[in-house]
Amino acid sequence: MSEKPAETRTETDTFGPIEVEASRYWGAQTQRSLQNFKIGGDRMPLPLVHALGLVKLAAARVNVRTGQLDAKVGEAIETAARQVADGELDEHFPLVVWQTGSGTQTNMNANEVIANRANELLGAPRGSKTPVHPNDHVNRGQSSNDTFPTAMHVAAAQEVATNLIPALQELKDALEAKAAEFASIIKIGRTHTQDATPLTLGDEFSGYATQLAYGIERVEAAMPRILQLAQGGTAVGTGLNAKKGFAEAFAAEMEALTGLAFVTAPNKFEALAANDALVQLSGALNTIAASLMKVANDIRFLGSGPRCGLGELKLPENEPGSSIMPGKVNPTQCEALTMLAAQVMGNHVAVTVAGANGHFELNVFKPVIIHNVLHSIRLIADGCRSFVENCVSGIEADRERIEKLLHESLMLVTALNPKIGYDNAAKVAKKAHKEGTTLQAAAMALGLLTAEEFKEWVRPEKMLGPSD
Amino acid sequence: MSEKPAETRTETDTFGPIEVEASRYWGAQTQRSLQNFKIGGDRMPLPLVHALGLVKLAAARVNVRTGQLDAKVGEAIETAARQVADGELDEHFPLVVWQTGSGTQTNMNANEVIANRANELLGAPRGSKTPVHPNDHVNRGQSSNDTFPTAMHVAAAQEVATNLIPALQELKDALEAKAAEFASIIKIGRTHTQDATPLTLGDEFSGYATQLAYGIERVEAAMPRILQLAQGGTAVGTGLNAKKGFAEAFAAEMEALTGLAFVTAPNKFEALAANDALVQLSGALNTIAASLMKVANDIRFLGSGPRCGLGELKLPENEPGSSIMPGKVNPTQCEALTMLAAQVMGNHVAVTVAGANGHFELNVFKPVIIHNVLHSIRLIADGCRSFVENCVSGIEADRERIEKLLHESLMLVTALNPKIGYDNAAKVAKKAHKEGTTLQAAAMALGLLTAEEFKEWVRPEKMLGPSD
Amino acid sequence: MSEKPAETRTETDTFGPIEVEASRYWGAQTQRSLQNFKIGGDRMPLPLVHALGLVKLAAARVNVRTGQLDAKVGEAIETAARQVADGELDEHFPLVVWQTGSGTQTNMNANEVIANRANELLGAPRGSKTPVHPNDHVNRGQSSNDTFPTAMHVAAAQEVATNLIPALQELKDALEAKAAEFASIIKIGRTHTQDATPLTLGDEFSGYATQLAYGIERVEAAMPRILQLAQGGTAVGTGLNAKKGFAEAFAAEMEALTGLAFVTAPNKFEALAANDALVQLSGALNTIAASLMKVANDIRFLGSGPRCGLGELKLPENEPGSSIMPGKVNPTQCEALTMLAAQVMGNHVAVTVAGANGHFELNVFKPVIIHNVLHSIRLIADGCRSFVENCVSGIEADRERIEKLLHESLMLVTALNPKIGYDNAAKVAKKAHKEGTTLQAAAMALGLLTAEEFKEWVRPEKMLGPSD
Amino acid sequence: MSEKPAETRTETDTFGPIEVEASRYWGAQTQRSLQNFKIGGDRMPLPLVHALGLVKLAAARVNVRTGQLDAKVGEAIETAARQVADGELDEHFPLVVWQTGSGTQTNMNANEVIANRANELLGAPRGSKTPVHPNDHVNRGQSSNDTFPTAMHVAAAQEVATNLIPALQELKDALEAKAAEFASIIKIGRTHTQDATPLTLGDEFSGYATQLAYGIERVEAAMPRILQLAQGGTAVGTGLNAKKGFAEAFAAEMEALTGLAFVTAPNKFEALAANDALVQLSGALNTIAASLMKVANDIRFLGSGPRCGLGELKLPENEPGSSIMPGKVNPTQCEALTMLAAQVMGNHVAVTVAGANGHFELNVFKPVIIHNVLHSIRLIADGCRSFVENCVSGIEADRERIEKLLHESLMLVTALNPKIGYDNAAKVAKKAHKEGTTLQAAAMALGLLTAEEFKEWVRPEKMLGPSD
Repeated sequence: MSEKPAETRTETDTFGPIEVEASRYWGAQTQRSLQNFKIGGDRMPLPLVHALGLVKLAAARVNVRTGQLDAKVGEAIETAARQVADGELDEHFPLVVWQTGSGTQTNMNANEVIANRANELLGAPRGSKTPVHPNDHVNRGQSSNDTFPTAMHVAAAQEVATNLIPALQELKDALEAKAAEFASIIKIGRTHTQDATPLTLGDEFSGYATQLAYGIERVEAAMPRILQLAQGGTAVGTGLNAKKGFAEAFAAEMEALTGLAFVTAPNKFEALAANDALVQLSGALNTIAASLMKVANDIRFLGSGPRCGLGELKLPENEPGSSIMPGKVNPTQCEALTMLAAQVMGNHVAVTVAGANGHFELNVFKPVIIHNVLHSIRLIADGCRSFVENCVSGIEADRERIEKLLHESLMLVTALNPKIGYDNAAKVAKKAHKEGTTLQAAAMALGLLTAEEFKEWVRPEKMLGPSD
Repeated sequence: MSEKPAETRTETDTFGPIEVEASRYWGAQTQRSLQNFKIGGDRMPLPLVHALGLVKLAAARVNVRTGQLDAKVGEAIETAARQVADGELDEHFPLVVWQTGSGTQTNMNANEVIANRANELLGAPRGSKTPVHPNDHVNRGQSSNDTFPTAMHVAAAQEVATNLIPALQELKDALEAKAAEFASIIKIGRTHTQDATPLTLGDEFSGYATQLAYGIERVEAAMPRILQLAQGGTAVGTGLNAKKGFAEAFAAEMEALTGLAFVTAPNKFEALAANDALVQLSGALNTIAASLMKVANDIRFLGSGPRCGLGELKLPENEPGSSIMPGKVNPTQCEALTMLAAQVMGNHVAVTVAGANGHFELNVFKPVIIHNVLHSIRLIADGCRSFVENCVSGIEADRERIEKLLHESLMLVTALNPKIGYDNAAKVAKKAHKEGTTLQAAAMALGLLTAEEFKEWVRPEKMLGPSD
Repeated sequence: MSEKPAETRTETDTFGPIEVEASRYWGAQTQRSLQNFKIGGDRMPLPLVHALGLVKLAAARVNVRTGQLDAKVGEAIETAARQVADGELDEHFPLVVWQTGSGTQTNMNANEVIANRANELLGAPRGSKTPVHPNDHVNRGQSSNDTFPTAMHVAAAQEVATNLIPALQELKDALEAKAAEFASIIKIGRTHTQDATPLTLGDEFSGYATQLAYGIERVEAAMPRILQLAQGGTAVGTGLNAKKGFAEAFAAEMEALTGLAFVTAPNKFEALAANDALVQLSGALNTIAASLMKVANDIRFLGSGPRCGLGELKLPENEPGSSIMPGKVNPTQCEALTMLAAQVMGNHVAVTVAGANGHFELNVFKPVIIHNVLHSIRLIADGCRSFVENCVSGIEADRERIEKLLHESLMLVTALNPKIGYDNAAKVAKKAHKEGTTLQAAAMALGLLTAEEFKEWVRPEKMLGPSD
Repeated sequence: MSEKPAETRTETDTFGPIEVEASRYWGAQTQRSLQNFKIGGDRMPLPLVHALGLVKLAAARVNVRTGQLDAKVGEAIETAARQVADGELDEHFPLVVWQTGSGTQTNMNANEVIANRANELLGAPRGSKTPVHPNDHVNRGQSSNDTFPTAMHVAAAQEVATNLIPALQELKDALEAKAAEFASIIKIGRTHTQDATPLTLGDEFSGYATQLAYGIERVEAAMPRILQLAQGGTAVGTGLNAKKGFAEAFAAEMEALTGLAFVTAPNKFEALAANDALVQLSGALNTIAASLMKVANDIRFLGSGPRCGLGELKLPENEPGSSIMPGKVNPTQCEALTMLAAQVMGNHVAVTVAGANGHFELNVFKPVIIHNVLHSIRLIADGCRSFVENCVSGIEADRERIEKLLHESLMLVTALNPKIGYDNAAKVAKKAHKEGTTLQAAAMALGLLTAEEFKEWVRPEKMLGPSD
């Protein structure tokens, strides 16, 4: 395309000058990364960018308070960092995931954008690096090596708290509501995909709801170590160039900013060199994916039909299935949910491989780890909400079909054991199976009981729990 | 247990003397590994041990032929190596997978066992190392670093040729036989688990058979690089200490021994430092696992019931499902097959992680790679055969049930479009769905056609292929 | 945000009317999907969208030729479809991956966009559905169930042919060039990460190049089945509603359009119900990921330092490593490459899980499969090119360091075996190791040889291959 | 082999009579499974078999107490079940993992063995089924569907408590001891595999120890749901045929037997239909595998050499590395540990796929799940202990080498910033790097400081923490 080249300004770093599009806040190191890493289309995830805004904000506050930063400079940094945190400068974060494995270039992207924006607020031109310098001021007391993992944990913790847990709760609540609604609908059970003894449709949904409830517990069990922040470890975990007390003050500030109970990591060497906390969190997401796969598979099979499937559930019809077959409701929400569950399982392997590959003082697979963890969180959260809204809340039981299947089932014969004996009951079941008749017809044909007796003795509602 | 300690003899290596149970052929290095690696219970797989026997046999032949080995010593080595290859000395290979990552200890296990056995054949006592020395003679011109990957490829190639491919073929044939048997049984199709347009039961089985046919092609596509042998690369790929021509002569000898078209690897550096060929083969096995999961899932769902499932297939009953429910046939062979498919998928990830972790001149995840590849091969081969014998070959169609579902289906209405128009056809289908009646009843109630017309126009057998 | 709502027009489907932003070409079904699937940010990949354009174009040509489509309508469809194929209408494909598992909604998106664009070309308003109807004309003779997997294969085949293979070739060539450049640099070998016998730096790079060469073969081995097209199978694989010959004519047309040797799938049931061909292709990508991990890991370790690592390679410096440490070159391209390798491994598991989950006549994990396969292809292709340009082509050998390490190494003692005997050689090595001296010093101190003899006998250049 | 066929006895089940080797305690259903599932060589794991013994023992106690079982029969069952639990009857459990997905056949194996052994104790012949019947007495109030998942949880909980946690603790302690031992050894740090600012060797080991400490927390976080038992849910979760109170009494009994805080699962539908608790536990093991990979990789790279690697650590020499190269210590324990870590990652994927595939009232991938979880536990536990004993506890620091590398490093220049200014410091570093000299030499050559000043200002021991 023959567009006029955009106007540029010159930015510099220790490698020398480089041209940057004039309208952008980023500086030389960001620009260099853009040019050196033309790989894929996966931008660094926005929750991570926003978390970096919070990190720079918290660091500036602590630095001002401890006299490491001039108040005026600090204030401008705070304002600019808040804009990053609030998503107002998203378009100024163009870098992809596939860059340096420490996330240094995205940390510098944040430093550069905040410095340029802060300078602008203070009346200085972009690229001037004064009065606000990206390294000396915005990055003060920090290294990419502690800042980036800190932002990873802050982003993950926030997404878990404000997005994932509420969405899981929403699906759990919707499933529990259905469990209550369907509590009295007795239906055939199925094990090995084969007919088994009865339970209620509410029982089935209570199982699904329990899976979700435990999913929440699983995520929460991973949080204590996600809430540990690497900040203060600087380049290799020792904290060289940071001030004593910075790590603790930073964590407190981050807690104040987010309302999440962040603490400084007790061992900064582990916090830089390994990303085990996110591997564990990804493991919790992987378990939830397995749960969602089970729930969605059950719902689509129970809703299969309309004539030639199980047909026990009626799923909401949200879009044309086929123009010719009314009643063909494709379980599209189940399909989206199971597809994203497969993705979360894949993402988990990427996180595991990446998490296992740290060397010495730094794991340099950080961007791919946080990319996948945040991707999985978003998929599960969005998927749960979509599933509730467009599927679960509209599920109806086909009571007639459920009743019909229940009473056709041969396994109700179990109830006859105490009345006519195991051997006779078996004869009844075998005869019915062979001849394709009902249990009652078979039993009566064998002269073993009357219609009235059958009605009295074979009562599925008595088969729903342990006996006294 | 208060057993009397077994009698021992003294074996030595460069670390000094060590006691070995007298009845065992192995020597000092094997014994040391036994003591240093008390990890898990996974023995080095027997096909690998047998392949090592072939490797030592082929090397001895080449070495005798080129004057590197005295004929008498060579002959004794050949005899002993043949016993290893034939599985007669399996109990003398006690080492586990979780040892040195080059497989050195298992290579030494082979050298020691063959040397001791050869010495015995020549009338010398075990442990004497003379006239046959494990390193100088059995391992002559070899290093663990080229020998072990050679044995890995030989073992994999043999298991593929003699076990995997025949078993896949067997399952393919059984599925094709069923496809032929069921070629005229018209049934409802299902997409999205929902009722769709018809096809034949034979069509479905032809799809399964095609998956298996392609599975064989997939494995075969991986073989050209499996047939490349590392032997001759010695310690780092250069071939130091081997004689010129040894590599080529060895490959030719191995081809003669096995009938498989082995060649010497054109680049020995790749052949030692990477195990990509086995990662690729594992990828083929992984694809087959996905195929088997699909086939077995379909069969168990199509066989679900007997009263409350799809019920189109009758699966052979091989064991009691439940003592009380005649007709409850659990699809246990499908369950075994899908479980082992899950295992193969997991094994593949282990192989991938291991394959990605070579460093410099040697990948030192060799034992875990071959362990998983051979495990997957055996599971698939055994699983296919068991599935054929205990399930596929006994599958029967429930023609009555299939017919009933087909004719209840609403989607046959498609056939009326050209006769009564799309709008009227849709009215028919909607009415039938809403009222739970048949298409014919609905159409007649709407006065759109007669019973005769319905019979003539709605003919599933005309819906099985493209039109002229 | 208080933006004025965009102007809309009314589009309809069998569910009724729905408002669509006036500037968009899409119709009712696309709009409905947008509203029902607010999940994640992953748009359906563009190569897939472009392939759908080709599919519609090829289908229209065949339909015109066989009289199934009016020439004028056909021509308009061709023009619009070509625009889709050429990427001119990308912004009109807003749907995400997480939708119906058959990709129906994206197929309808293509039908709607092409119909609206074609109508516009013919002077009719958007939304009019006449003279060009999305289903009756654009989708003529097709079903989503055969169209979408066809587009998947076309997209994958094109990306492989035009993007992946050339990029792999580029990296292979670059590595081969380095292998030639470094052919005479003798260096220490390393096995188990420990010092071993020597080889040349060129040998090492030849191993890497071989891995890439085989990677290309691996991808090519997967193509025969990718080149099979499902088109013509329509809803369940039977081809109902397609014309005889359509499938074959379509494949020929697609070959003509792309220059790729597409054929119609011999078994359409397999082609719809399973996506094994893409699982296999993903397996090839997974193997390449393992190769890239190995190569990039080696290069970063060989380039580690500058003072406290191995330091044999000098990697190009593309961006500031640290403002204070000149000579600190972070191997950032290696990091990007290994990160994306981890992602490809994860994507492969997602594809495997999805591929294993087909049911009956249709696998409904299609969007997640093609999303991951195309993602992996792009990552590998972009990654290889970036790695060549920003790393491999600029790698230099630190000949001095390599020479120094080589000569300090104790393993050169191997060369003395034939001269002073194994026992004396061992004494030399042990003494040198214990006292931290050179082999020569130790040997001379032991009175075993002279400086001249050492110089003559210990010559690494004689240790680079098999002996005569 | 022409062995005389073993003597047999006749056992029966509802399928009729079948011959069983006379010396075996198992019965007809076990025998049938042996014949129908000739797949692979993976026996059902022994901890699971032993746990089944405990389950039968606990059930018998509760049944006797509640009058469901005659005291004499109960006592005989208890005795026999105790023998199973204690591993005295292991050889009577021949079944493989690849059987029915509910584990029914292994549950029946336990019922049959215990019944036959109990009958024997009571003076009745094997196969008599009286006075002790495998179903009516040993399996009383139970179904395979609740018994098998109960045994899975009991086995996993016991292995975690008695094997895994102590082994992790042992490794954590060993690493902490090394952290203390090495607390004062200052060394070069490495990030991106490149030289960085210093830390102590103790710091590095403290990071490893922290990974292990957190690994223990991760496993413990998964236990609350592992401690929930399915027993009492019987066939589909309702508890049909169990007595009220049985579930709770059983859990209490199991707690008494094991000392582990088992409770009855609050929702039995979830407990049968899903195995999420084990997917989560496997996720914890997967995280630990990632930790172990990091630790073992670091240790082998830090111990690489002896001359041409990093050489900072001296690893214990446990076996001959090479007969010719003294000082060549292959890091074989690291290799075993990283190999098993790869296996655990693969096992985790198998567990995830299996866990995601439950249908309706039962997940029928139970054997493959528990097989992999117990395999991973054993590998990690054994691996940690072997690593402690044969590697970690014998690691020594090469203080001389560490000191040398530290002082050669250019990054100590950082300390000069406050003294001679950033620009001058950079000049020093650049000069030293370019000329290959020391910082001191370069600084002195530039006339920037004296030898005394350098000595005073450049003190790594001042670079190990945050400043005041």
